[in-house]
Amino acid sequence: MTQAISEFSLIDRFFKRPPKNSTLTLGIGDDCALLSVPHGYELAITTDTMVENVHFFADCAPYDLGYKLLAVNLSDLAAMGAKPLAVTLALTLPAADEPWLKRFSQGFFTLADRHAVELIGGDTTLGPLTLTVQALGTVPAGKALKRSSAKPGDYVCVSGQLGDAGLGLAIKQGRYGKHSELALNRFNRPDPRIEAGQALLGLDSACIDLSDGIAGDLGHVLRQSHAGACLTWDDIPLSDDVREYIAATGDWRMPLTAGDDYELCFTISPEKTDALTFPYTIIGRIETAPGLRIRKDGNVQPLEAKSFEHFS
Amino acid sequence: MTQAISEFSLIDRFFKRPPKNSTLTLGIGDDCALLSVPHGYELAITTDTMVENVHFFADCAPYDLGYKLLAVNLSDLAAMGAKPLAVTLALTLPAADEPWLKRFSQGFFTLADRHAVELIGGDTTLGPLTLTVQALGTVPAGKALKRSSAKPGDYVCVSGQLGDAGLGLAIKQGRYGKHSELALNRFNRPDPRIEAGQALLGLDSACIDLSDGIAGDLGHVLRQSHAGACLTWDDIPLSDDVREYIAATGDWRMPLTAGDDYELCFTISPEKTDALTFPYTIIGRIETAPGLRIRKDGNVQPLEAKSFEHFS
Repeated sequence: MTQAISEFSLIDRFFKRPPKNSTLTLGIGDDCALLSVPHGYELAITTDTMVENVHFFADCAPYDLGYKLLAVNLSDLAAMGAKPLAVTLALTLPAADEPWLKRFSQGFFTLADRHAVELIGGDTTLGPLTLTVQALGTVPAGKALKRSSAKPGDYVCVSGQLGDAGLGLAIKQGRYGKHSELALNRFNRPDPRIEAGQALLGLDSACIDLSDGIAGDLGHVLRQSHAGACLTWDDIPLSDDVREYIAATGDWRMPLTAGDDYELCFTISPEKTDALTFPYTIIGRIETAPGLRIRKDGNVQPLEAKSFEHFS
Repeated sequence: MTQAISEFSLIDRFFKRPPKNSTLTLGIGDDCALLSVPHGYELAITTDTMVENVHFFADCAPYDLGYKLLAVNLSDLAAMGAKPLAVTLALTLPAADEPWLKRFSQGFFTLADRHAVELIGGDTTLGPLTLTVQALGTVPAGKALKRSSAKPGDYVCVSGQLGDAGLGLAIKQGRYGKHSELALNRFNRPDPRIEAGQALLGLDSACIDLSDGIAGDLGHVLRQSHAGACLTWDDIPLSDDVREYIAATGDWRMPLTAGDDYELCFTISPEKTDALTFPYTIIGRIETAPGLRIRKDGNVQPLEAKSFEHFS
């Protein structure tokens, strides 16, 4: 990692901490970090970038930004059933704003410490605010939760509730007038469902994390599993605040098409649900016919994704 | 990894290829990629970002950019003695410019194929042109080449020649009038010294790759090894073009302080040099007294880094 003197001092001041994890052989300060992967485990690897004015508002609190940047990456590990191990952080910053960096690192490490994640390296560069994390996790060899494992007859389930983050975004953007602390918190500081992902290991589930809304994300599972699904509107888990939003706006599709919930959507064979050890809701079934449908007010209708598309 | 439909098609068209490597269990297209790390090996991890108008010129050929972005990351693996295994690529792009992406991916994969490196995942986002690679390599457990291993009495050596990339930059910037194809090639498409790094395993060497100029980079080795060094100017390996530049400008420090050579600088005990299997030059000795010095024209003088510093 290329590091000029002043980068070193930024890293030392805000990001260098004594290693807590015995799998880390060598941390920040050499050309590479070194990690051991326990025998019998595979390494799960993911990366996500957040860009100012694309993924977050210019006025985003730096604490929330540090928290969410890590959360969206850990959420990808959760969706594979992986246990987080370590992350690298590539920070492109317009200036070395120390109060900003301090609060950013506090948000980042608050979540990192909760999941015993080690920051093992990174690169700080000058430029337009762009933040990339790469996360590494471990999963027992051959046991990872793939998108391609859904089978007709499986239940479709979700952890937590849908649409709270979408409501938070609508409030932030001034598209909805009623304040909801719950919704803003869920938008700003999502909880990656690490424990839920690991609890699914060995249950033959397909799994994906809900970053772009269930209509689009479940669509990836269905295409990769060569299957379809029908959801039941009355079973979709919604907060009171989201119910109130729908009553006020008529926009019932929002919790199914808005992003940023970072709940897990997974499939499971009905006879295996007794093994589930975390809160979840059954919202539909996997079917043979391709496509995603929803039963609402007695009718079955197609449910189309309205995912956020870059470059569209 | 968050991927909207049009990102999928970008990835499919330019970056998705059948896996070539048996350690890759699952590639692009799920929440994470999955890799096996062979028993008895550690994982070496590094990340480097390149930002337009900071690390490269806006008119940089996309082929060269793809090549160099990978090269600078593989060079960090080389400096640990690691064998490259896989990389992720986080691309932030102002637009989906297909001819640009095609040439970028050609440069990237030309170098990737040369070292059997697998692209296992990534994220494409909209925003100011910013490119981050994270590279993963394997190294026999406990054998990695650390910056802290230099010992008084060791030789200081370099692979290849110094200053060609610095000369290329001077030509690009119009600071030097005489064209040099060699220098421009070395600036645009550096060769990561992967084989040299692996050949150093087991020889108790300290090693660093020369990204910021030897004066600064060797300084990191010396500080982390609690030692100093004296180089000998007459032994510094220089191309004819760099010698001509020095004769014309008097700027003899350029090959010692300019970046981007991506040669390896390493230390080795004199009795172990017989084991070296690649071209190298002995340019100095590690000493007990801290600091970096150079013997030139019969005098020993301090050699100070003029590293590129972000945020300075």
